[in-house]
Amino acid sequence: MMEIVFLWPGKTKNPHYKALQADYLEKIERLVRARIIETSETRGLEEKWAEKILEKEARGLEKHLKDGYIICLSDKGEQMNSKELAKLIEDKALKSGKKLVFLVGGFLGLAPRIAACADFCLSLSAMTFSHELARIMVLEQVYRSLCIIKGHSYPK
Amino acid sequence: MMEIVFLWPGKTKNPHYKALQADYLEKIERLVRARIIETSETRGLEEKWAEKILEKEARGLEKHLKDGYIICLSDKGEQMNSKELAKLIEDKALKSGKKLVFLVGGFLGLAPRIAACADFCLSLSAMTFSHELARIMVLEQVYRSLCIIKGHSYPK
Repeated sequence: MMEIVFLWPGKTKNPHYKALQADYLEKIERLVRARIIETSETRGLEEKWAEKILEKEARGLEKHLKDGYIICLSDKGEQMNSKELAKLIEDKALKSGKKLVFLVGGFLGLAPRIAACADFCLSLSAMTFSHELARIMVLEQVYRSLCIIKGHSYPK
Repeated sequence: MMEIVFLWPGKTKNPHYKALQADYLEKIERLVRARIIETSETRGLEEKWAEKILEKEARGLEKHLKDGYIICLSDKGEQMNSKELAKLIEDKALKSGKKLVFLVGGFLGLAPRIAACADFCLSLSAMTFSHELARIMVLEQVYRSLCIIKGHSYPK
């Protein structure tokens, strides 16, 4: 059975985004095996130490990147529409049986060496969204893609 | 003082999206005059009557489109990044003193004659998002744009 992992550093803090995250995961779990992995985030360092923060977070993320097909969310990534994403998910996971990992950065993004592990870089939008909102957008798109793949009508 | 209106048919139903909507509006209201107008939506008609539903909703929306600069969210619109959106908001509202109206469709979108009222069509993404999530994305982007315009650092 296909497995989808959503991976990011730091727990989602905003309670409404957190609740939406749980709701979408539950919907996705009805269709495939899925889980969210929130690795530890780096606290107590000022933002000027961005490189150091990202490097510490990278160590938490990398152990989850060893197998599977890694899709990294990045504003420098490739844009696609929902049907194209559904096709990508179908080709890379459903047909190959590989685990699919959607990797979303923290409030400062991702260390370059982590982004470089990705098999595919996906951009959700030309616009910059907060990292907690971006997580919801990814979950919603994956749920939508699975509905497309399985031929379910998507609840608007 | 600049005024921004967010206009759409039907109240946002999901309680978490509703709460996020209120939170972003509150943040935006600290920076400019702003409000959300949720016109009546059409109930009791099956989805196959899409045209009829959209026409009924159009009547509720059109009275709010008489003045101001109308930005309609549409997957057929133009994509821009957050800085470009900030520039658009600055040029069209801050400098002209005009009211700015962000128009987002309901669960079936918008009647073509309503979309045709727009001064500008904006696309958030090549992907299709649920209309309630799209509302949050618009609010977040407008808040982000206002932070850019006012030189505030945006809370990640």
